[in-house]
Amino acid sequence: MTEHKPATTVIGMGGMGRAIAETLQAAGHTTTVWNRTPGRAGGLTEAETAAEAIEAGAVTIVTLLTYDTVRAVLEPITGRLRGKTIVNLTSGTPAEARDMAAWAAEHGIDYLDGGMMAVPPMIGKPGAEILYSGPTPLFQELRPVLDHLAESTYLGEDAGLASLVDLAMLSGMYAMFAGLLHGTALAATAGIPAAEFMPRATAWAAAMAQYATGHAPAIDSGDYHAEEQNVTFNKSAVDLIHRASRDQGLDTLVIEPVKALLDRRQADGFGADSFESIIEGIKARSKK
Amino acid sequence: MTEHKPATTVIGMGGMGRAIAETLQAAGHTTTVWNRTPGRAGGLTEAETAAEAIEAGAVTIVTLLTYDTVRAVLEPITGRLRGKTIVNLTSGTPAEARDMAAWAAEHGIDYLDGGMMAVPPMIGKPGAEILYSGPTPLFQELRPVLDHLAESTYLGEDAGLASLVDLAMLSGMYAMFAGLLHGTALAATAGIPAAEFMPRATAWAAAMAQYATGHAPAIDSGDYHAEEQNVTFNKSAVDLIHRASRDQGLDTLVIEPVKALLDRRQADGFGADSFESIIEGIKARSKK
Repeated sequence: MTEHKPATTVIGMGGMGRAIAETLQAAGHTTTVWNRTPGRAGGLTEAETAAEAIEAGAVTIVTLLTYDTVRAVLEPITGRLRGKTIVNLTSGTPAEARDMAAWAAEHGIDYLDGGMMAVPPMIGKPGAEILYSGPTPLFQELRPVLDHLAESTYLGEDAGLASLVDLAMLSGMYAMFAGLLHGTALAATAGIPAAEFMPRATAWAAAMAQYATGHAPAIDSGDYHAEEQNVTFNKSAVDLIHRASRDQGLDTLVIEPVKALLDRRQADGFGADSFESIIEGIKARSKK
Repeated sequence: MTEHKPATTVIGMGGMGRAIAETLQAAGHTTTVWNRTPGRAGGLTEAETAAEAIEAGAVTIVTLLTYDTVRAVLEPITGRLRGKTIVNLTSGTPAEARDMAAWAAEHGIDYLDGGMMAVPPMIGKPGAEILYSGPTPLFQELRPVLDHLAESTYLGEDAGLASLVDLAMLSGMYAMFAGLLHGTALAATAGIPAAEFMPRATAWAAAMAQYATGHAPAIDSGDYHAEEQNVTFNKSAVDLIHRASRDQGLDTLVIEPVKALLDRRQADGFGADSFESIIEGIKARSKK
């Protein structure tokens, strides 16, 4: 019994496109690639035009730098894409993903949008995850191919969901990195090297990340009753960090937002609420 | 053979003072407590004045709300403190800790400063850590008592070090919490509940925290050569988060600092440097 392995196409030969194409080829899928600047295909089969590359595959995976680039590549060849299947893993906003899905629907193209929780060396290895959104039957049909790349997580029909959850998760990561770098800069003012401080701080951050999950029910219910460690308590701690950072001559910009959110909450009379209630300040603009 | 268990005193019966006093008493140390508002001692021996409490113990642990409160309690009884030993675990800035150490030295008081990486329920249990700084022989002498409370980590002679490292570690934690809440607010705009989003985001943040440690050598050496994932690459990702957050109607304040640090670094001509080079923007003020 032989398994059917559909031919695949990969558009965009950056680090991620290359890793994806090599993984699919190694998994037994005949893979054709295309890149705007030719000659980056390594040992893979390279098509001369994007249209020819897409025609060679039953499913095309797109990994370009921006949605504008994706449009610049695909829109001139729209007429040759009817009936084809495109999985767009390019990074973009939910609005861009929804616009692209609408464009695809209009031109008879099957379209799935994705968000990658991985860097190129992780593709095809445990720990990589790719988020998908778009038509459920299409995801189910493509899953055997997509599962070669990473753990595949399907989020729903709205094409913008993969991008939205991707960016939401990256928010936490970037803010944490900025905070760790602030802490590293603060420790450096006392001559403590990053190599000494960072392992300690990252272990602490990882332990505290697990603890954060316990706040979810309060956020969903909006019941911010605090046993201890309320807004006022945390405001004292963050004010100390702010003051000590300024004393030590640092730019305090990384600490400003959490200080501002706690200050606002305190000023609005919610000092006795739990720390996580500061999320209301982040949501505030959308409620106006 | 019986072990000598010095009598201890705990000043301040907030959640932390209570947990510390109960842990010491349970470990076999005769423990006297004092609190500005009496009647919060539970089953512990309560002295009528702070001076009487401190005189009853060979070592006194202070856990008050601020250093101003510590001074308000101790300065009027300075004359009765000569020759006594004080371990101050009150939260404050490095400058406050150094001032307090200078005051103690002037009045013949043995003084150790501490920073607590724990919440009250963790005291006396695995996972709690307390950082100490001050005279090395004093720390060594007190260690058998202090080790009942938490893992004791000694950082050096400069009394400000415990506070500095404590606040540096808390910086990372608070920034991460703010980032996770931003992500949770972003996910909520698509109807994804916190209970669904936060476990995913915290697991990701914990995994990424480990990855951050790999940046330490670059920070210590100032060699920000990047193989990939440089400032320009990360700026694209953070710009997307910023744009998507604004599109979804959120206040973007949590994302602003990392965006500003990347923008500055890019504008200064360091787009090809590694992400962690943004720490130079945090240190910038101290270099002026």
